[in-house]
Order: sequence, then structure tokens, then C-alpha cells
Amino acid sequence: MRFDGRAPGELRPINFKNDIAPNATGSTLIQWGDTQVICSVCIEDGVPRWMREQSVGGGWLTAEYSMLPYSTLNRKTRDIARGKIDGRSQEIQRLIGRALRAAVDLKKVGEKTIWIDCDVLQADGGTRTAAITGGFVALTLAFRNLMDSGKLLVNPIVEKIAAVSVGVVDGMALLDLPYKEDVEAEVDLNVVMTGSGEFVEIQGTGEKNTFPHNQLNKMLELVDPGIKKLIEAQEEALKR
Amino acid sequence: MRFDGRAPGELRPINFKNDIAPNATGSTLIQWGDTQVICSVCIEDGVPRWMREQSVGGGWLTAEYSMLPYSTLNRKTRDIARGKIDGRSQEIQRLIGRALRAAVDLKKVGEKTIWIDCDVLQADGGTRTAAITGGFVALTLAFRNLMDSGKLLVNPIVEKIAAVSVGVVDGMALLDLPYKEDVEAEVDLNVVMTGSGEFVEIQGTGEKNTFPHNQLNKMLELVDPGIKKLIEAQEEALKR
Amino acid sequence: MRFDGRAPGELRPINFKNDIAPNATGSTLIQWGDTQVICSVCIEDGVPRWMREQSVGGGWLTAEYSMLPYSTLNRKTRDIARGKIDGRSQEIQRLIGRALRAAVDLKKVGEKTIWIDCDVLQADGGTRTAAITGGFVALTLAFRNLMDSGKLLVNPIVEKIAAVSVGVVDGMALLDLPYKEDVEAEVDLNVVMTGSGEFVEIQGTGEKNTFPHNQLNKMLELVDPGIKKLIEAQEEALKR
Amino acid sequence: MRFDGRAPGELRPINFKNDIAPNATGSTLIQWGDTQVICSVCIEDGVPRWMREQSVGGGWLTAEYSMLPYSTLNRKTRDIARGKIDGRSQEIQRLIGRALRAAVDLKKVGEKTIWIDCDVLQADGGTRTAAITGGFVALTLAFRNLMDSGKLLVNPIVEKIAAVSVGVVDGMALLDLPYKEDVEAEVDLNVVMTGSGEFVEIQGTGEKNTFPHNQLNKMLELVDPGIKKLIEAQEEALKR
Amino acid sequence: MRFDGRAPGELRPINFKNDIAPNATGSTLIQWGDTQVICSVCIEDGVPRWMREQSVGGGWLTAEYSMLPYSTLNRKTRDIARGKIDGRSQEIQRLIGRALRAAVDLKKVGEKTIWIDCDVLQADGGTRTAAITGGFVALTLAFRNLMDSGKLLVNPIVEKIAAVSVGVVDGMALLDLPYKEDVEAEVDLNVVMTGSGEFVEIQGTGEKNTFPHNQLNKMLELVDPGIKKLIEAQEEALKR
Amino acid sequence: MRFDGRAPGELRPINFKNDIAPNATGSTLIQWGDTQVICSVCIEDGVPRWMREQSVGGGWLTAEYSMLPYSTLNRKTRDIARGKIDGRSQEIQRLIGRALRAAVDLKKVGEKTIWIDCDVLQADGGTRTAAITGGFVALTLAFRNLMDSGKLLVNPIVEKIAAVSVGVVDGMALLDLPYKEDVEAEVDLNVVMTGSGEFVEIQGTGEKNTFPHNQLNKMLELVDPGIKKLIEAQEEALKR
Repeated sequence: MRFDGRAPGELRPINFKNDIAPNATGSTLIQWGDTQVICSVCIEDGVPRWMREQSVGGGWLTAEYSMLPYSTLNRKTRDIARGKIDGRSQEIQRLIGRALRAAVDLKKVGEKTIWIDCDVLQADGGTRTAAITGGFVALTLAFRNLMDSGKLLVNPIVEKIAAVSVGVVDGMALLDLPYKEDVEAEVDLNVVMTGSGEFVEIQGTGEKNTFPHNQLNKMLELVDPGIKKLIEAQEEALKR
Repeated sequence: MRFDGRAPGELRPINFKNDIAPNATGSTLIQWGDTQVICSVCIEDGVPRWMREQSVGGGWLTAEYSMLPYSTLNRKTRDIARGKIDGRSQEIQRLIGRALRAAVDLKKVGEKTIWIDCDVLQADGGTRTAAITGGFVALTLAFRNLMDSGKLLVNPIVEKIAAVSVGVVDGMALLDLPYKEDVEAEVDLNVVMTGSGEFVEIQGTGEKNTFPHNQLNKMLELVDPGIKKLIEAQEEALKR
Repeated sequence: MRFDGRAPGELRPINFKNDIAPNATGSTLIQWGDTQVICSVCIEDGVPRWMREQSVGGGWLTAEYSMLPYSTLNRKTRDIARGKIDGRSQEIQRLIGRALRAAVDLKKVGEKTIWIDCDVLQADGGTRTAAITGGFVALTLAFRNLMDSGKLLVNPIVEKIAAVSVGVVDGMALLDLPYKEDVEAEVDLNVVMTGSGEFVEIQGTGEKNTFPHNQLNKMLELVDPGIKKLIEAQEEALKR
Repeated sequence: MRFDGRAPGELRPINFKNDIAPNATGSTLIQWGDTQVICSVCIEDGVPRWMREQSVGGGWLTAEYSMLPYSTLNRKTRDIARGKIDGRSQEIQRLIGRALRAAVDLKKVGEKTIWIDCDVLQADGGTRTAAITGGFVALTLAFRNLMDSGKLLVNPIVEKIAAVSVGVVDGMALLDLPYKEDVEAEVDLNVVMTGSGEFVEIQGTGEKNTFPHNQLNKMLELVDPGIKKLIEAQEEALKR
Repeated sequence: MRFDGRAPGELRPINFKNDIAPNATGSTLIQWGDTQVICSVCIEDGVPRWMREQSVGGGWLTAEYSMLPYSTLNRKTRDIARGKIDGRSQEIQRLIGRALRAAVDLKKVGEKTIWIDCDVLQADGGTRTAAITGGFVALTLAFRNLMDSGKLLVNPIVEKIAAVSVGVVDGMALLDLPYKEDVEAEVDLNVVMTGSGEFVEIQGTGEKNTFPHNQLNKMLELVDPGIKKLIEAQEEALKR
Repeated sequence: MRFDGRAPGELRPINFKNDIAPNATGSTLIQWGDTQVICSVCIEDGVPRWMREQSVGGGWLTAEYSMLPYSTLNRKTRDIARGKIDGRSQEIQRLIGRALRAAVDLKKVGEKTIWIDCDVLQADGGTRTAAITGGFVALTLAFRNLMDSGKLLVNPIVEKIAAVSVGVVDGMALLDLPYKEDVEAEVDLNVVMTGSGEFVEIQGTGEKNTFPHNQLNKMLELVDPGIKKLIEAQEEALKR
């Protein structure tokens, strides 16, 4: 049994507060254990210059991820005060963008840019998977709002997307690591999957320890049922 | 009567959700009409270099103000993406810092830096006055937490502080302007006051119209009872 | 009597050296006591993008304020060497811009941007009020030059503008504070007024001490005659 | 058969030009098909501040990755000209650092910082795996030089490390993708492995298509023998 | 005869207004034809880190050069607004620093940093030579002030330094080019010399035309008497 | 005799590895003694905005110079990590640009921008002269490639260009200084010349010592035959 009483394959409690940012087209606050992330979607006319130059049709989706200064136990200096974006944030926001682009048929969006903004309000492990899982809810809400108001005729969502972390602690595979387990983990794996059970992205790191193929498989076994539960939680949150 | 049914001297409804950011020493979400600001207090050891060099004793208090990208009707580009801090944000965060330094006896804080972080979640006019009014609540919560845990023996708060805007629209003084009235206002005045009825800061701008002394006085007449109501709302929010 | 022999409501000596920067459209060096500021006006074709996008007609006026490295007793590092603009400078240049926009009917300027550049050559208190007061002279000279050369048919100046500081030192209201009094002041008020006696901007700060309404009034009593004298000094400097 | 005549599990030709940068402690130019990366190792006294503050003993290893402007078919603007580091570069250099830290026992290095610099001279797919595979050779050369000169007594290398890409093109798993195949790939997987056959890092992305578990396995089957060949090529290059 | 009536080897009129910036240790406004540069010297305790680390004794001298926005016919954007220092300014300030370091025995200065700030008030060709020639006057004034007040016992000045430009226009060598001649010049040479007639720095550029050795010599023939006149003008300006 | 056995007017061995960067339009690695610089030419459509605005016809040529982190004995921090371009690099890249613009008739290039990128792989004195000398070879290769493929009809090269350093060490003029002699040199002169024996640029600095006219002449005597040898080496390297 884990320090917080969970079974190895059990998720922390998850909850969504939709419309947390009323001026966005869609937004939610995902509360996942003690991790909280504001996920918001804003849609602007136009696409980035490189898309226009390459005459790729359709829209674009991009993500920005940031930790609010008070999200960590020691205050985190704002990027603008340091004068440059945090390397880890850059890596994470690129992951979020790739993950959510897999959920959308951008051809159906028109020449628009979809901004996914993820701001961490409280960090306790798994902020990137929370950002993706919450980002999908915000994205669905945004498209629903546009369809309700007649600004969009076809729903561009083509896949349900969620993400979860899994790690190996003391040789045992554990799903959904909070910070306390994360720092102890020998291996750390983040997986983004679709509702239909396919991978979108898989990132595994064994900085403290390298890991054999069978350990990868043991971790992946926990992921599949975890993603299913997350998709259910998203569906529950999206019920009208 | 105003477009939202308020009397000229009437405040919008105000509400505080304390401890919105559990990793901060103190925090609150101030919801003031449709303006929402996350106000948070983090306390770090040490003071800025210029204070050490000048051998000023005691602590320091400084503020950072930022609008989250999804707080406005059109998405606001993050400062780090533009590469420089927004001029208006810089002006506002300096005001917040000056205002809340008036609330605290920094000698009683020790060699510490108090960070007031104000992030606007939803902007509908009066974000700077909401940041100050909410910042005072977060600051009081932070000191209370430190005293409860024995890390601080004396409460450094020496004054209650709140702030409110007042403007002249169509020749009439109106308290607490939402965005819709703000863009119509001929004169715009922001006032920071103490619970004992003294001014901490007063900033009036008549960019659209200049204004005579008696109009200044008419505006100030609305401020005093408004600040009293705000102090009451803060006290209510701070009840154990 | 004050340390420099002045009465409480007396200004320091003020002098203008016009055309200090011959390549500008208009310029003056304002020497106000030991404070000296180069004020210059350059006019460029076109307006900022946000104006074009909002189809606001007419021109734009914006200000930049900077302290030359040798203007202070200890050398001030240039902004470009620190990599970011000084927060205080940003706050001041926004004030200068707002103040001088009140002097001009921008519709009469055409699609042009008016740059007010204020560089402090010597700092001894009151640099922002000197920048505004000198900026108005430079602006008038610039428009006069354009009209003399037939490039402008109607004078866009609609109000005379000047600014002055006033403070409370040892409980006494004093006009036009040099650095030595400024650091002692309990309250510090900067007022921008028109020649017709109306307020453009009023900014009062009581960081060291809060201040009651009657103290605000006592300070404002000194401002009105001070502004009148400044307007006279400007008129004298602008005599052909 | 592939467009360049290779079998699905066949690597492109690989070659190392050691000591390409004689002033570095160790360096090599890895030429892998038409991808060429300068890999260099410099060692400085001292560790980053966060390590000193946390009193972690031993040394630190960090990587910087950059594409030279002339490495791509269209010239790539330098980061310093854009004013900020490229997001993709940041993501890659973090991967290189994590990968090579797994090769080294940093406790044996002493209070030193090991800089891995990877500059792409020619880009034709797989630059990140080339940087890791070449970086390991440069690292080994650097430690050998230090041991030969008596500056290091024990070899801190604990694992051999190499990396390779694998993708799915038209439903078929292919090892070591050049640019032409990379842009066609439905799934793209980069794997860092040890000489003993364990994973260090695994990153798979299915932006164009999501992918099922059995496709992941098919890709991983190609990786294992590929890594073995790469380790042999490294050993060959490191023969005295 | 030249467009302004001067002979080929004749300087434009030159004038110094000393103590233009009273808060500096030494300062002058050099007015050389229609070129005006504020030259100022500030002295700070301490030397740059690289000097401390290399245990070089004595002081350091460094220069900063900037064109004020209103110094040119079209307003010049400030470096801080562009976010990076102008390449030409960087090149010029490095030249000024090297030139004036030749005038000073830095061992006699102690562990101090001498800042030479040169801000162009009006640009009409030859701003870099004016900055050096005026910078030497400001430097001499600064050391004199320090010696007068007893803060310095020995004068660290070891050479008199001045600088002048010379060019070839329509095949004819001309001394001291204003902007109008500068843009027409086939060859442009800037020379820094000592009072004893030796070179400190010589920079010749033939971007429009290459130039033979005898043309170099013809230009240098004009320089020597020109520098002598400049040294005399400096001596005149430095008379008590 | 010099420490490396050379006569005073003798060059270090020089060698060119052409096409070092196959994706560039033209490139070479110049190896000059122990100094190695990658010189590359990329050609883009369009010219900088200031050229378009001034309706100057033809193309533009600009250079960027950078020292790779491992080119020096102590690792050199990348510009992007410091956040600003190195002052010395800026000065050098402006020199390279001016020098190579003298080699080309930009009217014959069309509305194109020619980028000369010079990255120092190993630094042992004379990197700027190596960059110019190698840059000319890369430029010639680039134009040849364009003519071979029919994209350019007329060769825009109008002059052969090479550059060399010369200095005075212990009173003796020495050609082509490696680092060891460079740090000892009293005077340092860099000369860019054409194949026809005219100067393009001449930059002499006597920071350690000033120098008389006859010493300038003694240095220039060594330059002329040195440049001839360099032009021969370039021609050899450019033989088909």
C-alpha cells in the first residue's frame, strides 16, 4: 500500500471546475489530488507566419505552460523576471501542444489559432499530465460554446485525449505519482493516450536507474485502465 | 441609475475565496463583480541587495502584477513571449507594493522579503484596486499562519488597507467602475485608504477631460464610505 | 524658512534653453533649480499598430523618459546594460505621455506619431514635473516650427500644461521639493494642471505616512499659484 | 526496400572524426548518413548554484544543442539574433543532458561541471540521436585525456550509451530515419539505451497518427540490434 | 574649396562647455561644427570580475556611447526599445575605451572603474572622434577634481589624446568630414593620436572604393597638424 | 627567429577544406596554423527593410561571427546564454561584412541577402583575418555553384580579397601572429587588401604602446607580400 493509502494502479481523486476563466472561450480548473492547473482555450483569427508561408490549410493549435509563482513550496521566480523562459516549461508546453493537436482535425477549424494556456496553481506531481487532461476538457468546452453560438458548424474533436504518469518506486510500478513518490522514482513515464486506447505520446526517463523492457511493459499495464478512468472523469465533467 | 442597477456610490458584490493557492503562505481569490484576482503572499529569507548595501534593517515587501492571458476578452500575450514586461503592469505592481508597504511595519518582519503576487483571472475594471484589497487579505492570512505556527511573534500589520476606483461619467461621479463605465469615464481616480480614513495613495487622471477641484471633491466623497464597506468585507473574510 | 531660503509656496528658479537639440523638431533644456532635463519632440509618419487596427483617426503622442548615467550622484547603469527598462522610468514616461496628450487635439495632427523624449542631465528632485513642464515648451516649439514651414496649418495645442510637486515635511506643506526635502517628505504629491486651472493628473503617495483629507487640501492650495507661475515661465520662454 | 536501398532495420553509415576541436577536453565529429554533429566536452571547476545550495556532492553534467545557421536547407536564424533560444533546441538539449548523465557516476568527477556542446553542421534527420551517440564518444575521450594526464584517477563512465530513432512509414517500422522518411513518418520514436540493453529514455510521438501497443513493440524490436551496432561503432572509434 | 568654405586640412570650429553634467566627476559638452557630444566621467569603486579573477592590479576604464534619439535627422529608436545594443554603437564604444586607456596609467588609479559616457546630442559626422577628443577633456577634469579634493595624489594621465577623421572625396584628401562629405567619401579614416605624435589607433575603411598606399599617406599628412590643433583646443579648454 | 621557427614575414601554413557544410550554397573550413574557422555562405530572397525603404537596388551582404564554446582554452559561454551578443564579436562581424562587400558588385546579385557565417572551431590568433580570407573562398564557391546551376548568369565578384594580421613584438614587426605572440604585441594591425594591392580596411591598435608613423610603415611592408601569398592559396583552393 502506498503512503496515501492508494493501490498501485489507483488514481488520485480528480475534479473539474469548468468556466473558471469566463473570458476564455473554454476553461476548467483541474484538481487532481493536490495538483491544480487552470486550463484555458482562447481562439484568435489567423495562423502563424510559417503556416501561411507554407500554404498549409486549416488552423493551428499551440500551448503555453507556466507555473504560477505560488504553486510551489518555495516561490518560483516568474520567467519575465529571469528574462527567459524556463527550459522545463518549454519542454512541457511543446508536449501539451503535440498531445492536443492529436485530438483535433485542424482542417475543420478554419484559419484560426487555438491557444491552450495551462497555469499551475498548485504543484504536487503530474502537472503536465493534468495540463493535458484538463486541456482536453477546456478544448471540448470551447468548441461546444462556438457550436452553441453558431460560430462553428462541425465539431473538430476527433479523439478523446488524456494523460497520466507512472513510475517505478522500490522496484514496483505505481500509477499517478505525487511529488513525494516522484522524487523517489527510479523510472518516470508519462503517457498520452486516446479514448480508443492508442498512444499519442510516450516519454520515459530513467535518470536515476536505467530500466529493462519488461519494466516498461509493467508500467504500461497500469496506464491503460488509468486512462480509461480519466476519460470517464472527463466525460462526467462535460455532461450538460 | 447605472446600467447594472447600482446607485452611484454602491460597490459591486465582493467575495473572497481564501487559501486558493495552498502552497503560498497566504492567499485569496478576490471576486469583485466580474473582476477576479488571485492574490498570494510568499515569504523568502533575505532582502534585496540595495537594502543590504544601505544597511536598512528589517524586511522588504514587493509586488508583481500580471494579467493571465485568458483574463481579457481578446487573449493577452504573455510578457515572456513579448520579451519585456508590460508598461501598465509595471506601473500597477509598483502601486500595489507602495500601498501594502503602508500596511506593514517592516522592522517587525526580520530580514525577509514578502512577495505579493497578483494574477488577474478575469478583468472587468478595477483590477488594481482588487489586487490591493485582496492583497491585504492574503497578507493578513500569511502573517496569521506564521503566528499560528510560532514562526512570528508579533503581528507586523499596522494599518488596514483597501482601494477603490471612482470616476466621472456624463458629469456624474460613480464609485467602482466596471470596464463598460471605465471606457466612458472622463476622469478616473484610484484611491488607497486606511481603515482609519487616511490616504495612502491617490491617483487621478483626466486624459479624456481635465477636471476642476470641486469634481475631485465630489469623487472623494464617494470614496470614504466605499472604503469602509471594503474594510468590513475584508474583516468578514478574515473571521476565523 | 526652508534650507535654501525659499518660502513654503516658492518655486526654485526656472530657465529654458530652447533648441538644445537642433535636429529635433522642437527641443528645450529645462533648468529648474539643480534639476536639468533635455526635452525634445520628434514627429514621425504613421501611428502604432493598435491605433491602425482600431481605426482611431488622428495621431498619437508617446513619451520616453530616461536618466542619463551621470545625472545622479552615483552613476546609474543604462537600461540596455541591465537588459530591461527601469520600473520607475516606465511609470514616469507613461505619466508624461498622458499629461501631454491632454495638451493636444490629436485629430489635428494627422496620422503621425509625436515622440516626447525626456533625458535627465542632472537630477535633484522633481524630474518628472520638469519633464512635463519642459516637454510642453518643446511641443509648442515643434508645432510652431511646423506651422512656420507650412507643414501644419492649425495649431493642435488646446491647453497649456505644467506640473509641479508638493510635499509635507515635518507636518508642513512645501512646494517644489529638491532631493534633500524629497527624501524627508512624509507625503509626496505630483500635480499636472492646465493653464485654465483644471487637473490633468494628480498622484499622491504617503508611503512614509498616510495623510488625511485636509492635508491633501493644504498641499493643493500651494499647487494652484505654483502652476500659474510655471505657465508664465513657459510663456516667457516661448516669446518670439 | 527503402529509397536509399537500406533494409528496414539497417543503420546509415556512421563515422567519427575525433579531436575535431583541439581546444576541448574531448571532441568528435559524428557523421551519420548526411547528418553531421560536432560533439565536444569542456570541463570547468565548480557546480551550478542550485547544487551548491542543496549540498549535493560530486559534479554536474549539462548539454547545449544548437543548429549552425548553414546546417539546414534554408538558413536557420541564430538564437541570439532572435533574442531567445529555440524551443526545439531547448527540448533536445535537456534530453542530451539526461541521457549522458546516465553514463557517468558524477560522484567520481569532483566539484566540476561537464559541458556537452553539440552543434549540428549538417541536418538530415536524427540530429538528437547523433548528438547523444557522438556525445558519448567525446565524453569518453575527455575522461581518457584527463586520466592520461593524471588529472583523474578513476574513470567515471559507468554505462555505454547510444541513441537511435525508429519510425513507422506506410505502416512499416523503419530504423534510423533520414529527413525524407522523417517527414513521412506516422510515428516517431527516439530511444536512448545502454550497452547492457536497458532503456535510458524513450520518447515516442504519434502527431500524425496515434499508434497501438503492438506498433510500439514492433519499433522497439528494431532498436535493440541497432543500438548494439552503434555501441560497436563507438568502440571502434575509441580504439587507441 | 569645400562646401562650407574650409581648406582641405582645416578643422571645423571646436568648443567645450565644461561641467555640463554637474553630478559627474568630470564632464564637458564638445561642440565641433554641428556635432555635439556630452562626455562625462564617473568613477566607481571596484573593477570588473574578470580583472579580479586575473589579479591584474590597478583600475579599469570603459566607455559607453549612445546616440540620443533626437540627435539624428530621423529619430533614432532607443536601444532598450529595440532590446539590443546597436552594432555600430558597440563598435564605437570599444574604440573610445581603447583610445582613452592609452591616456591613463591605470596602476595609479587604484581598484576603481572609470566610466566614460558619451551621448551624442547632435550628429553631423565625426561623432566618434568628438567623443574621444571630448572624453579626454572630461577625463582630465575628473582627475583634476579628485586631486583638488585630495582623493587622488598623483595624476594618472600619461598622454594627451585626440582623434580626427579624414577622408577622400572626389580623389582629394579632406580633414574632419561633416555628414554631407562623409556620405560622399570613397575612403574614411579615423585616427587617434597622442600629443607626442604617435598613433593610438588607426581605422581606415574603403567600402565604396579601395585605396592605394599613397592615398593612405596623403590622408595621414593631414592628420598630424589636425591633431596638434585639437590638442591646443583641449589645452585651452582646460586652462584654469 | 620566432618561437615556431618562422621568419618575421612568413605566414603560418594555410589549408582549405571546401564544402564542409553541404547544405550551404558555399562553404569552406579554413585551417590557418592552429586557427580554424568554418566559413559559409547562404543566400536568401529579399533584402533588409532599410534597403527596401531607401529603394537602393541590388542585394545585400552581411556577416555573423561567433566563437564556438569549445574554440578557446577555457569554454566560452554562448551569447544566447548570456542574453546578449559579445561586443568583440559584433565588432568583428561588422568588419567581415564591410570587407566582403568590397569583393562583390551587389547590383549583380539581385534582391537577395548574402549571409556570411563564420564560426570559429579553434582559436589561436587571427580569427578575424581567417574569417575574411576563408569567407572570400566560400563566397566564390557559392557564386560558382549558382552559376553552374544556371541560377546566376554573371559572376558578381569584382575583387579578390584577403586579410592578415601584423604586429610589433619586442620592437620587431611580425606577420600573422598566433595567440602567443598576439598577447605580447605592442601594436596590432589587421589589414584587408585586394588582389590588386589596394587597401579595403586597415585597423591598427596600440593599446599597450603607441606607435610612430615609421613603425606603421614597417608593418605595412610585411603585409603586401603576405596578402599575395594568401591570394595564391585561395586560388589554389578554388582550382576545379
